[in-house]
Amino acid sequence: MSDEILSGVFAPVLTPFDATLAPDRQKFVRFCQWLIDQGVGLAVFGTNSEANSLSLDERLDLLDALTAAGLPAGRMMPGTGSCALTDAVKLGACNRMAGTAAVLMLPPFYYKPVSEDGLFAFYAETIERVGDRRFKICLYHIPQISGVPITLRLIEMLLKRYPTTVAGIKDSGGDFAHTKAMLDGFEGFRVFCGSERFLTETMRHGGAGCISATANVSPAAIADAFRRHREPCAEGRQRALDAIRGIFQDYPMIAALKHAVAQYGRCDSFRIPRPPLPPLEPDTSAALIARLESAGFAMPGLSLMLAG
Amino acid sequence: MSDEILSGVFAPVLTPFDATLAPDRQKFVRFCQWLIDQGVGLAVFGTNSEANSLSLDERLDLLDALTAAGLPAGRMMPGTGSCALTDAVKLGACNRMAGTAAVLMLPPFYYKPVSEDGLFAFYAETIERVGDRRFKICLYHIPQISGVPITLRLIEMLLKRYPTTVAGIKDSGGDFAHTKAMLDGFEGFRVFCGSERFLTETMRHGGAGCISATANVSPAAIADAFRRHREPCAEGRQRALDAIRGIFQDYPMIAALKHAVAQYGRCDSFRIPRPPLPPLEPDTSAALIARLESAGFAMPGLSLMLAG
Repeated sequence: MSDEILSGVFAPVLTPFDATLAPDRQKFVRFCQWLIDQGVGLAVFGTNSEANSLSLDERLDLLDALTAAGLPAGRMMPGTGSCALTDAVKLGACNRMAGTAAVLMLPPFYYKPVSEDGLFAFYAETIERVGDRRFKICLYHIPQISGVPITLRLIEMLLKRYPTTVAGIKDSGGDFAHTKAMLDGFEGFRVFCGSERFLTETMRHGGAGCISATANVSPAAIADAFRRHREPCAEGRQRALDAIRGIFQDYPMIAALKHAVAQYGRCDSFRIPRPPLPPLEPDTSAALIARLESAGFAMPGLSLMLAG
Repeated sequence: MSDEILSGVFAPVLTPFDATLAPDRQKFVRFCQWLIDQGVGLAVFGTNSEANSLSLDERLDLLDALTAAGLPAGRMMPGTGSCALTDAVKLGACNRMAGTAAVLMLPPFYYKPVSEDGLFAFYAETIERVGDRRFKICLYHIPQISGVPITLRLIEMLLKRYPTTVAGIKDSGGDFAHTKAMLDGFEGFRVFCGSERFLTETMRHGGAGCISATANVSPAAIADAFRRHREPCAEGRQRALDAIRGIFQDYPMIAALKHAVAQYGRCDSFRIPRPPLPPLEPDTSAALIARLESAGFAMPGLSLMLAG
């Protein structure tokens, strides 16, 4: 795996469910194919994928479906965050076998607070047990959900011991000062912002890219903004991205993104999140779609890809 | 299952690990036997059991070990909290099959905040899928760790729909006003305090008992205080319990409890928590044991039970 691969825009891929709330493998594979065609990588099994609402076996089965369908493992950064060491090791090893670019690894998120030494031990034990020098980890900082921050000191401890395995971080904390501290503090460390709102700024300071919820619905536009972030009109493109994101942010994000994919992709499997996340109320979803229509929002080719 | 069974003192049983950090089945079964002999029930797979640091299969394997050893399922209230609906259903169904008194069920604890409707849907879907009228749930309120409170409104919604299945709650929130609101508000609902500090008070207001970390180390004393909570000397007994708990609370609780069991039980499998929880530092553990010795603390019969 080269640094060339661990960069760019990744979508934390939404997970479709059938009428029994089981993952819909076929629609999942097709949606992933559409995202790849639109120019983004696949951060499957992230927060927006409802990964922690899936069992270990369900996640492994979907990973199998992607590789069986011939989707490029080098463009995947699957989430493997688990509270249990044994689960984190199993997911890490399976990803290593499948040849994915890296894994996006939450800290164990049940106990709070947990010491940096304890978190270091969890990551270290996972890395040692996977036991493969090609294994790459992208840390995942999302303290408002996980309750467990990835501190600068923890990163420093991990980089000192595992400089090639601990390859980068997704910063979903929403505080660019923290992102910048990592960009400035750790040379060669691949920093991804967790929202395209920070894309231009992150790239300007040497970032690796962006892993963002809205890359599920605006993949081509975000990928384009990434590729052309050095061009003079970058600010204008950033404003256009912010406008679409602003609409989705006014609603429960995961339910709103799923509703948009269901609507524009004409595919009911994306409509319903798994409990505990509720779907949008009918009034709310109608209001969302009306605003997207006014903004000229589209998902070209999606319904054709998801058909059948 | 009768109300008679779903009462009393339960220990959230500490989980022993061998040198490879795998659960030590044999020592686990023996420790559970000792706890039963001391007069407490088995709330295996709770927070203090590091249950969320175990994989689903590891938890099911330990449950099998207990039933294979002939420990009384009617005295067990295993934790089945999971972020994934499919895991919660599997754990619930296996417990129902094994005949345990009830399951202690955390809310799904990854997403925050989650609406009461979303949490209701998660519990309801689990109950419907387990699909057995004998299935009993004790809810688990521990917002400082889970990040997801069990509100009075959620309890009301669940009791209205599932009055026999939703049998009670463990309140580990540390706020007796919340405990009392549940005791006063829901007739017949089995309320367990999450610390023996509140035992006398909880029982005085019609509570069902106590599920407390320190029931791992002082089971007989806490069970005795429960049985005799109406006697005139209840306050004195409560003060004695508080003194021992006060010592443990001065240290990281799980590591301290495990160290005490390892020391008094002469069994190294209890010494080490699984990452991300760190063990006690040597200085700290020596100080803990010195304080326990001064307080005349003992765990009678434990080393004999754990030997061999």
